[in-house]
Amino acid sequence: KVTMSLKTVICVLWAVCVGQTAGSQHGPNIIIMLMDDMGWGDLGVFGEPSKETPNLDLMAAQGMLFPNFYTANPLCSPSRAALLTGRLPVRNGFYTTNAHARNAYTPQEIVGGISQDEILLPELLKKKDYVSKIIGKWHLGHRTQYLPLKHGFDEWFGSPNCHFGPYNNSVRPNIPVYNNSEMTGRYYEEFEINVKTGESNLTQIYLKEGLDFISQQAVAQRPFFLYWVPDATHSPVYASERFLGKSQRGRYGDAVMELDGSIGQILAHLVSLGIHNNTLVFFTSDNGAAVMSGPHQSGSNGPFLCGKETTFEGGMREPAIAWWPGRIPAGTVSYQLASVMDLFSTSLSVAGVLPPDDRVIDGLDLSPVLFNNSLLDRPIFYYRGNQMMAVRIGQYKVHYWTWSNSWEEFNTGINFCPGQEVPGVTTHTQEEHTMQPLIFHLGQDPGERYPISTYLFPDLSLFHLQVTAVVEQHQKDLIPGMPQLNMCDLAVMNWSPPGCEQLGKCLKPPESNPWKCVWPH
Amino acid sequence: KVTMSLKTVICVLWAVCVGQTAGSQHGPNIIIMLMDDMGWGDLGVFGEPSKETPNLDLMAAQGMLFPNFYTANPLCSPSRAALLTGRLPVRNGFYTTNAHARNAYTPQEIVGGISQDEILLPELLKKKDYVSKIIGKWHLGHRTQYLPLKHGFDEWFGSPNCHFGPYNNSVRPNIPVYNNSEMTGRYYEEFEINVKTGESNLTQIYLKEGLDFISQQAVAQRPFFLYWVPDATHSPVYASERFLGKSQRGRYGDAVMELDGSIGQILAHLVSLGIHNNTLVFFTSDNGAAVMSGPHQSGSNGPFLCGKETTFEGGMREPAIAWWPGRIPAGTVSYQLASVMDLFSTSLSVAGVLPPDDRVIDGLDLSPVLFNNSLLDRPIFYYRGNQMMAVRIGQYKVHYWTWSNSWEEFNTGINFCPGQEVPGVTTHTQEEHTMQPLIFHLGQDPGERYPISTYLFPDLSLFHLQVTAVVEQHQKDLIPGMPQLNMCDLAVMNWSPPGCEQLGKCLKPPESNPWKCVWPH
Repeated sequence: KVTMSLKTVICVLWAVCVGQTAGSQHGPNIIIMLMDDMGWGDLGVFGEPSKETPNLDLMAAQGMLFPNFYTANPLCSPSRAALLTGRLPVRNGFYTTNAHARNAYTPQEIVGGISQDEILLPELLKKKDYVSKIIGKWHLGHRTQYLPLKHGFDEWFGSPNCHFGPYNNSVRPNIPVYNNSEMTGRYYEEFEINVKTGESNLTQIYLKEGLDFISQQAVAQRPFFLYWVPDATHSPVYASERFLGKSQRGRYGDAVMELDGSIGQILAHLVSLGIHNNTLVFFTSDNGAAVMSGPHQSGSNGPFLCGKETTFEGGMREPAIAWWPGRIPAGTVSYQLASVMDLFSTSLSVAGVLPPDDRVIDGLDLSPVLFNNSLLDRPIFYYRGNQMMAVRIGQYKVHYWTWSNSWEEFNTGINFCPGQEVPGVTTHTQEEHTMQPLIFHLGQDPGERYPISTYLFPDLSLFHLQVTAVVEQHQKDLIPGMPQLNMCDLAVMNWSPPGCEQLGKCLKPPESNPWKCVWPH
Repeated sequence: KVTMSLKTVICVLWAVCVGQTAGSQHGPNIIIMLMDDMGWGDLGVFGEPSKETPNLDLMAAQGMLFPNFYTANPLCSPSRAALLTGRLPVRNGFYTTNAHARNAYTPQEIVGGISQDEILLPELLKKKDYVSKIIGKWHLGHRTQYLPLKHGFDEWFGSPNCHFGPYNNSVRPNIPVYNNSEMTGRYYEEFEINVKTGESNLTQIYLKEGLDFISQQAVAQRPFFLYWVPDATHSPVYASERFLGKSQRGRYGDAVMELDGSIGQILAHLVSLGIHNNTLVFFTSDNGAAVMSGPHQSGSNGPFLCGKETTFEGGMREPAIAWWPGRIPAGTVSYQLASVMDLFSTSLSVAGVLPPDDRVIDGLDLSPVLFNNSLLDRPIFYYRGNQMMAVRIGQYKVHYWTWSNSWEEFNTGINFCPGQEVPGVTTHTQEEHTMQPLIFHLGQDPGERYPISTYLFPDLSLFHLQVTAVVEQHQKDLIPGMPQLNMCDLAVMNWSPPGCEQLGKCLKPPESNPWKCVWPH
């Protein structure tokens, strides 16, 4: 059990004793819990056979479950940029034009990051005096100008990149962990991850950071936005000692159990502080399970096809739960087609902030869905880089391009669809279907196994017209942002992050030698 | 809403008015609801994305969910014979020796059926004055000596075989529908199924039969065993008009919705009669979803491999829920490895009847599981014909033989694993692995995609010894029953079932010309 500081405890008790209902005077608190590489099928409530997520299942029973929730990209950085800007990666610049239809992200050799021209959710929430904190993985660029405190967050505890490693700090530095605007250590050094045993306390640290932040804002009676983004389910997966070996699912399941337990503690903390009736909590994940990483290092996409890196359902359909006792009706299922970008628009809506009117926002305000279980008509677009690969309209998904990964890569053993193969669909060459799109009915065929042309389809030509109209409308308005993920340079890696001097942890960068990043898939 | 007869209503009201709590004087009522070809993944609570089974999900929330529940065979007749005898098909005779490792069942040209030497659950329950009724598909042989009323059931409404058709009654008769020991009509004649539209009222008829039977026994204060076996989810799937087109999943989903709604009505009926606290209800299915039948005619096996006809998880893991308000703790999940055969032993246990002591019973009494959430150590055996294909011990599944179907059949388009292919596992030749079994950890790898030899396995040789001991113990005790599913003959088909004379529906059989049935897979 994580303990609060004595000061916090006293403050909380005082607030309770004097009868104040903290948080009732201001806009609702907002907590977005975004998991890393967790799949749709990883939750008990979504059919994981081991049923080891009792807290998330309870959260669903107390809130609203979204079986048709999507990310904006099958890879982490673009997905996170989309969530915080409410805009597709092709608009906010989180894509590459180095090759056709490639997934790009922010490894530490990336030169780019989130553009200064983009307006992030925490920047907008400032208009209503929200205090914003990110706890966990940022992934929108690690160079100084791209860091969270430059883009609206007031506080940060976590890292700018994935926790890959350990590195030897000569060819490649270990990733720093920041406390606000300065580093406080590095992974595999001050923040241990035992890749061999899978042990790390990071989730517990992120939990304590979250509980403390919530307590502090409750006491201060300030509205807050907490962006809780732990990365324990991203390879190399980790869990703290208490959870290691506890799951039926192996190390990945241990990580899920620890996250589930932590989420249970956060929700319980809101209740104990009496602010649960004034807090919107949304749980989801950044992309599908990384099934190419094998059974020890990745999760489950349930009945869906393939996973991370692909625009099949396994890559982009996400587990999602909304929770707000007293506002969101308990135990409901919403069939709304929804997206991580909607969290931007919905957060603004509940906070009473208008979205920017000088740019296209792809996010939808889900308030009518959350509070009245309405259904809003909207398409879902599936992108890889700046290539729209597919679109979903209602139950129909229309693929214009299919690709898993290249034969070259596949033949080295990298398989984005292990155990699955749908001829003509999970292709190893980029296949264009623009003239005769592959159509699936996701209600009848969630696994994308039976292209609809192979059986009876009423009014096919009428349907094509409708889809074409939606796609043309989308493309007409589309002004691609400047691509941020084209250039790489070893000199920009995390050699000397801010704060390294005090810690004596500055490293010497090599000479700058930029190159066009190679994105193989 | 199905209406009861006026007499029944009056009786029920009278029972309630005079303050009697029907059923409290005798052993608990037992209801086994066995679905046909419904898959593990077809329930919302097991992750079907459309979440269209609110009544079953509620039943799980009020009862105990079994994610590790198995059938005894991946095909209907042997599975049903196993449920009612508590014995593996290889013991009770529901298998063939015509070829190696073949699935056999009871089409209407089958000569055999359930042996007179087998003792069925309703026969045993008579010792405690249970009244037993089967409503729906029997499938243990259609010749007179094999029918339900010859094997312990007091009442029957339903059919002896699958509802395939329509037939022209010259080459092949339509399947009869029985009311007790005499036919009352035939499918596609008195009992319509519109194969083109999918419309049929059969589920509503089975529902009404069930509600009426329950009412009658409640009024009479007799303990009852209701074996409710509707077949709407077996190809050709059907639903009544009110449900057609209502599901997001197409016609199959319509059938599931109607079954779900009917189950909700049955449970509500128990509550309204005040006998829910004295009734054990168990819901499951006879084998995995028939994924070879395509998206319009089959369901979902969730994250599992392949389906009906195979000994992969998709063929034999079943959705399962136990419900007994006040006795079974609500909202629990049991990880018990359990089997349809356990329903035999558990039913006897709760009724206070000893099982036969002159034969091996494979079923386990699940009472400690249901009432105390205990975990009992036991293996699960996966058979095809009389060949043990695989065994599960704990989380480990050990395949000694693998086969999906033959290349010849596969090349005609019959695919038992559509969209799935695991090299060396979903084989199209019968592959023996006895010397080096294929091992999967089903917790980490429920989809049987990663044979465990490909990554680290501690104490492999010790594990082999343990498995070998279990298998050898099993085989040492195994006395195969006389195979009942070897011979076929067109003369034995449902030409002139009992009662055909009164209805004028007797047909002339051809000359007897028996042959060894051909079981292609």
